[in-house]
Amino acid sequence: MDQQFTSEYLKDFIQKVFEAKGMNTYQSSECAEGLITADLRGIDSHGVARLSGYVRLMDAGRLNPNPNIRVVYETPSTATINADSGSGLYAGQVAMKIAIEKAKMAGTGWVAVSNSNHFGIAAHHAMLAIPHDMIGIAMTNASPLVSPPQSSSRMLGTNPICIAVPSRKHAHLVLDMATSTAANGKLEIAQRKGKEIPKGWLVDKNSNESTNANELKAGGALLPLGSDIDHGIHKGFGLASMVDILSAVLSGANYGPWVPPFVSFLPLIENSPGKGIGHFFGAMRVDAFRPIDSYYENIDNWIEKFKSTPANNIKGRVILPGEFEDEFYEKRFKEGIPLHDAVVDDLKKLATELGLTF
Amino acid sequence: MDQQFTSEYLKDFIQKVFEAKGMNTYQSSECAEGLITADLRGIDSHGVARLSGYVRLMDAGRLNPNPNIRVVYETPSTATINADSGSGLYAGQVAMKIAIEKAKMAGTGWVAVSNSNHFGIAAHHAMLAIPHDMIGIAMTNASPLVSPPQSSSRMLGTNPICIAVPSRKHAHLVLDMATSTAANGKLEIAQRKGKEIPKGWLVDKNSNESTNANELKAGGALLPLGSDIDHGIHKGFGLASMVDILSAVLSGANYGPWVPPFVSFLPLIENSPGKGIGHFFGAMRVDAFRPIDSYYENIDNWIEKFKSTPANNIKGRVILPGEFEDEFYEKRFKEGIPLHDAVVDDLKKLATELGLTF
Repeated sequence: MDQQFTSEYLKDFIQKVFEAKGMNTYQSSECAEGLITADLRGIDSHGVARLSGYVRLMDAGRLNPNPNIRVVYETPSTATINADSGSGLYAGQVAMKIAIEKAKMAGTGWVAVSNSNHFGIAAHHAMLAIPHDMIGIAMTNASPLVSPPQSSSRMLGTNPICIAVPSRKHAHLVLDMATSTAANGKLEIAQRKGKEIPKGWLVDKNSNESTNANELKAGGALLPLGSDIDHGIHKGFGLASMVDILSAVLSGANYGPWVPPFVSFLPLIENSPGKGIGHFFGAMRVDAFRPIDSYYENIDNWIEKFKSTPANNIKGRVILPGEFEDEFYEKRFKEGIPLHDAVVDDLKKLATELGLTF
Repeated sequence: MDQQFTSEYLKDFIQKVFEAKGMNTYQSSECAEGLITADLRGIDSHGVARLSGYVRLMDAGRLNPNPNIRVVYETPSTATINADSGSGLYAGQVAMKIAIEKAKMAGTGWVAVSNSNHFGIAAHHAMLAIPHDMIGIAMTNASPLVSPPQSSSRMLGTNPICIAVPSRKHAHLVLDMATSTAANGKLEIAQRKGKEIPKGWLVDKNSNESTNANELKAGGALLPLGSDIDHGIHKGFGLASMVDILSAVLSGANYGPWVPPFVSFLPLIENSPGKGIGHFFGAMRVDAFRPIDSYYENIDNWIEKFKSTPANNIKGRVILPGEFEDEFYEKRFKEGIPLHDAVVDDLKKLATELGLTF
C-alpha cells in the first residue's frame, strides 16, 4: 500500500541527504527541488525513488558532491559547461540559467554540458525559461537501453526532449517525451505487476518482438518511437541520435554505447571517448521574434482552438502537452505524494545510514 | 512506364517555367534547385511533380513571383522574415542564409518566417549550414491533414523537422522526417496502386482505424508518429504541435487548422489569425561549442560506431539518417531522374501553355 507525504517533507529530507553526503546548502536545495518536481508532476520514476541511486553514485566516487562547474567555451549565444562529475540535477539548472542570460543579450542562448550525471526530468530545466517569456528546451543522453531499427544492440538512451512554451491566459505547454516508444519507467511498472506489455516496446536479445517486460533485463532493448518499419521507427531512432549528438558530441561527453550507466554496480565502459553524460539546453526570447503581446495573443488562441477540439477520451477533447502533469502537480501539491512501500523502506534505510530520520 | 531525365534538363525546364511566370533569374534558379534536390534525393512527392501546383498557386494570386522578402524583427542571434507571399523554396534559402550569417557572429542563428508558401523538402534548407561547419535545422508547418490523438479533426500538417549534422570523413547525417507516422506521399502511392495501408497511418472521418488510403480524401486524417496511445501518439502530436508553434506562432504565420492549403482549388480559410504558412530555421556553429577538430573526431567516430553495428536488414548493419537519400542522389545524379508518365504529361501541358518545350 502507498503512503502519502507532503512535498515539503520529502524535499526537506532529500536536501538533508544530499547535505549529509557533502553537498552545500544551495546545491542540495536545487537538487531536491529537481527530484520533488518530478514526483509532483507524476513522473514517479524520476523523483525521490531515485534518491538512493544518486547516493550510491556518490559512494562509488562517480558523482562529485562539490563540483567546480565551469564554462569552458562560449560565444554571445552559446556556452559549453564542464560539470566536473557533479549532479545533472544541479548542472542543468546552472546551464539553463546561463542560456537564459545569453538569451537576454543575444535573443537566444544555447548551452551544451559535458561530464555530468543524470539530470532528473527535462521539464524541470526547460521550464526555467517560462517566467522570462522564453521558450525553454532541454535534452539529455542516457545509459544505452535503446536499439536502432532491426537491431538488438543497445546504442542509445531513452534520450528525452523537452520543449516548454509560455502562455499568458492558460497553462503553459510542456512537451517532455522520451524518444523511445515507452520510457523505462513504464516497463518497470509492468515488471512489478507481472503484466504483458504491448508489442512494439522492446525486442529480446535476438531482436525478436516480445511482450515480456523481463526481456529487457535479459539482454533485450527498448525500441525507438515508431516501433517498427511500417510505423516510422527510423524517425524515433533519428530523433534519439540527434539528442545524443547535440548533448554529447557538441559538448565532449560520452555518446552512444559509451554513456555511463546510472546504477553504480555496473562498471564504466573502458576507453570511452568523452566525459560523463551530456545535456543540451536552449532558451529563446519570444520577443526576439515578434512583439510580445502579439505572440501571447496567438499562443493563447492556439491553446483555445486545440483545447476545444473534440476527442474520444476521458475529457471529450484534445489533451495538450503537459496537461496531465499539471493536474498531477496541483493534486499532489495539495494532497501529498504517494510513495510505494518499497520506496519508503529504501528511504528509511538511507535515513538510518546517514543518521537522519524519515 | 517511367521515363528518365537528367537533373540538368529538368532543372533548366523548371527555371524557365518560373521565369515565364514572372520570377527573376536568381530566384527561379534557387526554386528550381529546391525541387530538383528533392527528386535527386528520392523524395518524388516534393520535386518536379509539384511544379504545376506552384504555377496554379501563382495563377490564383496566392504565390507572389516577385516578393519583397524582408527582415521585420531581429536580435544578434534571431530574425523574423515576412516572405511577402513568395515561394518558400526561395524564402527558405534566404532565411537559412541569414541564420548562417547570424551564427558567424553570435554562435547560432535562428530565423522564423511568416507569409510564406510550401518550401519543398526541409533538408534542402537545413543542409546549407553544412559547408559552414554548422548544424542546420529546418521545419515548417503545412496544410492540416493530421489529427490529435483520439480525434479525427485535421488540426496539424505533416510538419517536418530536418536536422543536418556535418561530418568530415563520412556522409553528413541528415534526419528529415514528417512528424506524422506516414507522410502524405506514401499514401498517394498506396492510392495509385490500390493497395491496403498498415493500421496506424490514418483514421476515417469518424476516427476509426482504417487501412484504406482513400479514407483520407473522404474526410479522414493522418495520425501523428506513434499511431496509438500504447505506442506514444501523444509524442508525435507534441512534436507536430511544437513545429507549428515555432514556425507560425513565433513568426506570425497561420497555425493549426488555419494553415492555407497547397492546392489552389481549395479556398483559403476565412478570418485566419496569421499570414501564409510559417517556417523555422536554425544554424549552430560547431566551434561555438568546442574546438572544431575535436568535434569532427567525435562525430566521425559516432558514425563509424553506429555504422558498424549489425542489423537484420538489406545491409546487415544500422542505416544512418539520410543514408538512403544520399544513395538516391548519387544514382540519380549519374543515371537521371525517373518520372511517371502522368508527371511527364503534366509537364508537357505546362510547356505548351507557357510556350516552352519539354
